Amino acid sequence: MKVAILGTGMVGQTLAAKLSEMHHEVIIGTRNVAETMAKTAPGPFGNPPFKVWKEQHPATPVVPYAQAAAQGEMVLNATSGGASLDALRLAGEANLSGKILVDIANPLDFSKGMPPSLSVCNTNSLAEQIQRAFPTVKVVKALNTVNALVMVNPNAVAGGDHHLLVCGNDASAKTSVTEFLKTNFGWKNIIDLGDITAARGTEMILPVWVRLMGALKTPMFNFKIVQ
Amino acid sequence: MKVAILGTGMVGQTLAAKLSEMHHEVIIGTRNVAETMAKTAPGPFGNPPFKVWKEQHPATPVVPYAQAAAQGEMVLNATSGGASLDALRLAGEANLSGKILVDIANPLDFSKGMPPSLSVCNTNSLAEQIQRAFPTVKVVKALNTVNALVMVNPNAVAGGDHHLLVCGNDASAKTSVTEFLKTNFGWKNIIDLGDITAARGTEMILPVWVRLMGALKTPMFNFKIVQ
Repeated sequence: MKVAILGTGMVGQTLAAKLSEMHHEVIIGTRNVAETMAKTAPGPFGNPPFKVWKEQHPATPVVPYAQAAAQGEMVLNATSGGASLDALRLAGEANLSGKILVDIANPLDFSKGMPPSLSVCNTNSLAEQIQRAFPTVKVVKALNTVNALVMVNPNAVAGGDHHLLVCGNDASAKTSVTEFLKTNFGWKNIIDLGDITAARGTEMILPVWVRLMGALKTPMFNFKIVQ
Repeated sequence: MKVAILGTGMVGQTLAAKLSEMHHEVIIGTRNVAETMAKTAPGPFGNPPFKVWKEQHPATPVVPYAQAAAQGEMVLNATSGGASLDALRLAGEANLSGKILVDIANPLDFSKGMPPSLSVCNTNSLAEQIQRAFPTVKVVKALNTVNALVMVNPNAVAGGDHHLLVCGNDASAKTSVTEFLKTNFGWKNIIDLGDITAARGTEMILPVWVRLMGALKTPMFNFKIVQ
């Protein structure tokens, strides 16, 4: 499948590498290709600049958001949460319309220092903002509750015996995304939480996730829902 | 131990019954004893009115908040989140000072319908509000992420193989509460998330908890943190 990945950070890089390995045709979208390729500073979590990744993955095209969105049959939003709405406006509603958009971003606000707060929460969520801004797009919130390495390799944590939470307004889009995540990444347990307003809940997991990462001293963990 | 339980709802009733069974001296605090005993309507989750519980537990005293707080060596806040600060003011700082206060409440706001939102979150939490209002009290946030029946009987869910999250500014208070929860209720896995600001994270679990209850069709579940 042609998969457009918007965002060139740790999450975008990790998803692009894995989906290329799985023989999907990956198109990476960014705001300004020349600027993205010119960056030499490491990312906020110490990951290398995108140009290093690109040298290791020369076959993967890096194009402006609109071109990536136009080419992708499915679109993954791996931009930082604070930049997602702008990035999607640049991608363009016409290029996204009718497609599945997997929203992986979290509306983290680092402006007040660490740990981050959320720029939107409680009675709203980033995923809802995106769905309202692009009503013809099938927004599915997923993957935002785990580290990038866990997203593409859930078996690295407890043999994959833990849960991913998805939500969205379009039932068939959720079914497609669930199958996609199982087939490509090996997710075994995926719970559908209902419509897109459930993203309030999954985005609001972030503050406890950050605290757990501190207590456990690793980002390689996840929640298993037990009954 | 003399344990004061503030609140006569489902959580207070469940905690009081279990701690009495464990031979603690339980004192239940409420705003107005006569009004509490006069209520005949069921609780918001269909639980019987307090007077029914009291008939089944005639030996457990029910007294005003201040009297309960004065008598308790440890105090459990099982009031509804929106009423907690008022209840604790009535309990009185002098009666609470130097004691451990286990804050179990969630700042749920039902005024906009279901599912509830939070009346405080993100850059603040109910537990922090309480700690700031009562600086000489040792506030430990705990138990707020599970149903009342799971609080006192974690073994009812997956044989107890799941996690409780605690936080607070006083390390020895957290140690005491952890031991108390293990000894009296059978909790096996308790993670200390750090200072009281971590309550932002544990209180913000509520929105996803409510959605999970809907998806799983039971409140008898919990999160197991797997690595």
